Order: sequence, then C-alpha cells, then structure tokens
Amino acid sequence: MAFRIFSDLSAPDATLALLKNGTLGHELLLSQMPAASVLEKAPTDPRLYLADIAFGQPDPESVARARNLRWIQISSSSITRYDSPEFRSLVSERGIAVCNSASVYSEACANHTLAFMLAQSRLLPESLVSREPGGSPGWNRLRGNSVPLRGQSVLIVGYGAIGARLFELLRPFEMHVTGVRRKLRGNEPLPVLAVESIDEALENGPDHVVNILPDSPSTAHFFDSQRFSRMKHGTLFYNIGRGSTVDQQALLDALRSGQLAAAWLDVTEPEPLLNGHPLLAQPNCFITPHVAGGHRDESVTLVRHFLGNFGRFSRGEALIDRVM
Amino acid sequence: MAFRIFSDLSAPDATLALLKNGTLGHELLLSQMPAASVLEKAPTDPRLYLADIAFGQPDPESVARARNLRWIQISSSSITRYDSPEFRSLVSERGIAVCNSASVYSEACANHTLAFMLAQSRLLPESLVSREPGGSPGWNRLRGNSVPLRGQSVLIVGYGAIGARLFELLRPFEMHVTGVRRKLRGNEPLPVLAVESIDEALENGPDHVVNILPDSPSTAHFFDSQRFSRMKHGTLFYNIGRGSTVDQQALLDALRSGQLAAAWLDVTEPEPLLNGHPLLAQPNCFITPHVAGGHRDESVTLVRHFLGNFGRFSRGEALIDRVM
Repeated sequence: MAFRIFSDLSAPDATLALLKNGTLGHELLLSQMPAASVLEKAPTDPRLYLADIAFGQPDPESVARARNLRWIQISSSSITRYDSPEFRSLVSERGIAVCNSASVYSEACANHTLAFMLAQSRLLPESLVSREPGGSPGWNRLRGNSVPLRGQSVLIVGYGAIGARLFELLRPFEMHVTGVRRKLRGNEPLPVLAVESIDEALENGPDHVVNILPDSPSTAHFFDSQRFSRMKHGTLFYNIGRGSTVDQQALLDALRSGQLAAAWLDVTEPEPLLNGHPLLAQPNCFITPHVAGGHRDESVTLVRHFLGNFGRFSRGEALIDRVM
Repeated sequence: MAFRIFSDLSAPDATLALLKNGTLGHELLLSQMPAASVLEKAPTDPRLYLADIAFGQPDPESVARARNLRWIQISSSSITRYDSPEFRSLVSERGIAVCNSASVYSEACANHTLAFMLAQSRLLPESLVSREPGGSPGWNRLRGNSVPLRGQSVLIVGYGAIGARLFELLRPFEMHVTGVRRKLRGNEPLPVLAVESIDEALENGPDHVVNILPDSPSTAHFFDSQRFSRMKHGTLFYNIGRGSTVDQQALLDALRSGQLAAAWLDVTEPEPLLNGHPLLAQPNCFITPHVAGGHRDESVTLVRHFLGNFGRFSRGEALIDRVM
C-alpha cells in the first residue's frame, strides 16, 4: 500500500535523500516552507491536508483539516505544541497515532547532563581559567573544592527516556539515584516516586536535583521558592527540561543565598535570556543555549527514527516513542 | 611492636589528628617543614633518619641515611622523584617497600578525564558563552558540531589505575577502548597492547587519545610530531599524565593544522605555562592547572590510604599500591 507522506523537516539535501530513498514507492510531499528548527513551528503547507502521514512539526490546528492522517511523527522530544485536551481528543477520535522523537535526543541530553555534573564536580569553569601554581593557596582551594560524584545522591525530576539513559551513565559512579515521574510504570530500574511526593523527595536532601520536566500547565514554575527552600543548603540544580518549569526569580534568590551551590541550565525563559538578565551575571549559574539534544547528523538520526517507525507502521506494528 | 613513623605531610589539623589517632601506640614524628603540596619536595627534617616508616615526600638522597627505614608511603601518584636506578637498588638492597598513592587519586583523575571528554563532546567552552537564539545558523552549528561519545574509539596510553577506572566510567558509552602499557599483566578487562606497539595503535585512528604516561627518561617527549602525524586528522588529545611526555611545539603545530581537533591538558611543562606561551592562546587547547587528582578532603583520603597500608604492614600483609 502506498502512503502519502508530508514532511516539513528542515534538513540538508543528503538527509532528505535518505528520507526519499527510505520511502520509495510512496508519495513524499516535502514542504516548501520547512521549520527553522525542530523547536519552531512551520507555516502550514496546504499539502499537509492530503497526507496519510506527517513528519516534522505540523501545525496542530491544521491537523484537523487533514482528513486522511493516521500517524504524526513529531520531530522533537517536546510535544508542548500538541499537548492540549482539544488535540488529544481530536487524534483519539480520528485514531491518529502521535509519536515524538524522544529516543533521538535522549542520548545527547543525558550526555549533556553528565557533562554539566562533571564540569561542576571538577570545577571546570574555574580551573580552565586558573593558572595558580602548584602549592599556592588558590591551587589548594581549587583541588580541595572538587567534590567527587561517587556516592552522592541525585533526584531526577521528570524521569523518562533521558532520565533512564542518565541513570545508565551514572551507574559506575555508584550514586544514589531516585526518579520522580507523573505515572509510575512499575518496571523502572531505580526507586521512582510519583510527582505528588516531590516535596518529601526534596526534603531528603539530594546532592543533585536534575530537572527534566516538560512544559505543560501543571509544570509551570514547578521549581519555585517553596521547592528550593525544601532542598538542603548547597544543592546543585540542573535544568535540561524546559525553562517555564522554573521560577527564575526564586532560582536567582537561591543562587545568591547559597541555598543552591550552583545551577546548570540548558533552558531558560525566554531563550536566550534578554541582555542584562541577572542570571547571566550570576557567577554560580552556567547556561547553554538549548543545545542539550543537539548532535552531529541529528537530522540523519531523526530520519532514521522516522523510517524505523515507518517500517513498523507499514507492518502494523507498535510504534516507538508513541505519546498519544 | 611500636614503630617510629616520620611524616612530612602538609595537612589540616583535623587530618593530622586522624593520623595521630590511627597510629596510637607508635611514635609519630611530624616534620616541622612539611612540603607545600603532594607534588613538592620537602626540605629534609633530620628526624627522618630515625624512622622505620616514612609517609609523604621524603628526600630520596636522605633515605640512604635513614638506616631503619622499612617502608616508604609516597603521598603522590607520581614516583618520578624516586624512579632512578640508584634509588631502586638502594631500596631493593635494604628491603624497603615503596608504595605510591595511586588509588587515592585515580577516582578524581578518571572523573577529570571524563569531564574533559564530555565537555569536548558537548562543546561546553563554546556553548557556555553562546547566546545564539534557536534556529540561528550559529545555534545549528553548535548543535550539529557536538559529536557523541557513544560508539567512538579511545586509546589510553599509560594504562594503569586511572585508566582502569576511566574504562569503567566509559562502559555505558559503549566506546571501543584500547590500552597501552609498559608491562602487560594479562588480566586487563580490555584489549591492551605493549608500548612497543604504540605507533600501530595510533595508526588505527582512535577518535580519542588519552595520555596518562608518567614522567621518566623513557617517556620524555613521547608524543612528538612523528606520533601526532600517525594519528588521524581531527583526533582529540588529552593529557592527565605529565607535561614532560609531550613535545609542546609539536602539540601546538598539530592543533594549528587541525591534525588534532582539540587538546585538553591538566599538565604542561612548566606548570603553569609562562605568560605568552602560545598554547595559552590556542583556541582549541584547554588547560587546567594540574588539579585532576584533587578532591575534597584529599588529605583525609591520603591518611586513610596510609593507615590502611599501616595495618597491612603491621600484620605483615601485602601493601596496596606497592611500586618497588
């Protein structure tokens, strides 16, 4: 059976060639107006309305007019744009499967988080600019302030594909890792608490709190002054989820008071932060510009993920990263 | 049996109290002139000549005059100061056991190396100062230039305690790790080559070359222009061994030509590099000031290591980290 596949993916020609080759025998409709990135909404190309399958970041409102759609493969890990009651009931009624690309980004995101944790543990921001000679007081301080990860405790808030991979990467460090997630599956390889127990989990005083929460009405300013105050003094905080999940004024206060020893953020609100934002000048705050999921040949990994799911779709098998 | 223990260890009072408590019933001679750091030579305190046991960085020439010495516990991982044919035959004739403190530093050193590898993989030096907005060409470049560690190849030159721990930390990344060491033990948990095969190993084109060689006449400028040229174009080079093992002019040339994509160095020659040294200004060269082994409560770990060995020594058991 031949499918009509619409894609608004912005990718180099070689990647699009991979997509074309992998869908030979089917009709591939490439948008003339691809999105600027996997995080941007593309303008609607009316050819979407003809498609059986959509791959990229199709406009949710236009999906209602695409009467033949049976499967949407979203090109990001985030499904914020699609995560509304209206959209969920639309795809449920129409029997449209919706997948995200979490498994494309989880490896890079978990690596980025561990890079943050180790850069903090080894004090790289300080030590890469230090030229203190051996034995000097500054040198002794630099060496002595490096706190090993081994044996420390970590709370992963928003445990999912990224958290699972991070847990694997942390295994050799023999850390005490606990997860917090919305729906417990029961087959997690580590202790996991429901999100309702978050305050208790924070009061247990983890050394590291890793925030991987998605953007949604229920996670808005999830980390506020209340939650920061439940943590122990000197906690290390990481955000590779979404900027909206953190009250940035509360974060700033916690960094200034030392309640948080440091924060490492890949996401902020807005992105990038406006010039003069106090977090930019806060010495114990380290920010990367929403690059945690990025990696060489990302569009190739994305297309391979789509093609893998396309094979499953064609054979009537369960899809990977299905979210609706 | 009561021993006379000489120590020139420079440590906070609380750590020295730990040492005193752990050696109660023995005579502890604390030098009035302790070394400035575990890497510095201390001036000789004549009380060394009376000791059965020396702990710290005793002057090798003074050891000849310490007629009662039976065991020297060196407070560093490096034994360069003691690694001469004269010293080796002296301790061999006298039956003096010599231990280093490799296991005190291997955890931190392996962490530091992985911090370097991940900071490079995730392009932290660039991304921590970037405020490129999502979708911009600079942002796409930053995301796209991040090369995941997973599945890449690593050559560890000078495989020992640090290399073994690094290998454990790298396991979840499913990298292809090969070691090179002077003497093969046969029980290494990864493929290991003798140092005579180094050129062949470099020509195999590992993505990452990790240099953990100690300082010795046979390792002087081990990495020279010849060896850099055997690597593949774009290799990543790390040095957490000793600065003397690298020809820094050859390193600079390799960084300038792109033969090395980047170098991450914890050690240089001299330390710190003199003002104006071209490696300091080389954009793809990242230097920390010989802090890889440092960690919080380092002197406590060191004293615990000594006390563990002291127990073994008292009971006539085999010592940990014995090197001579």
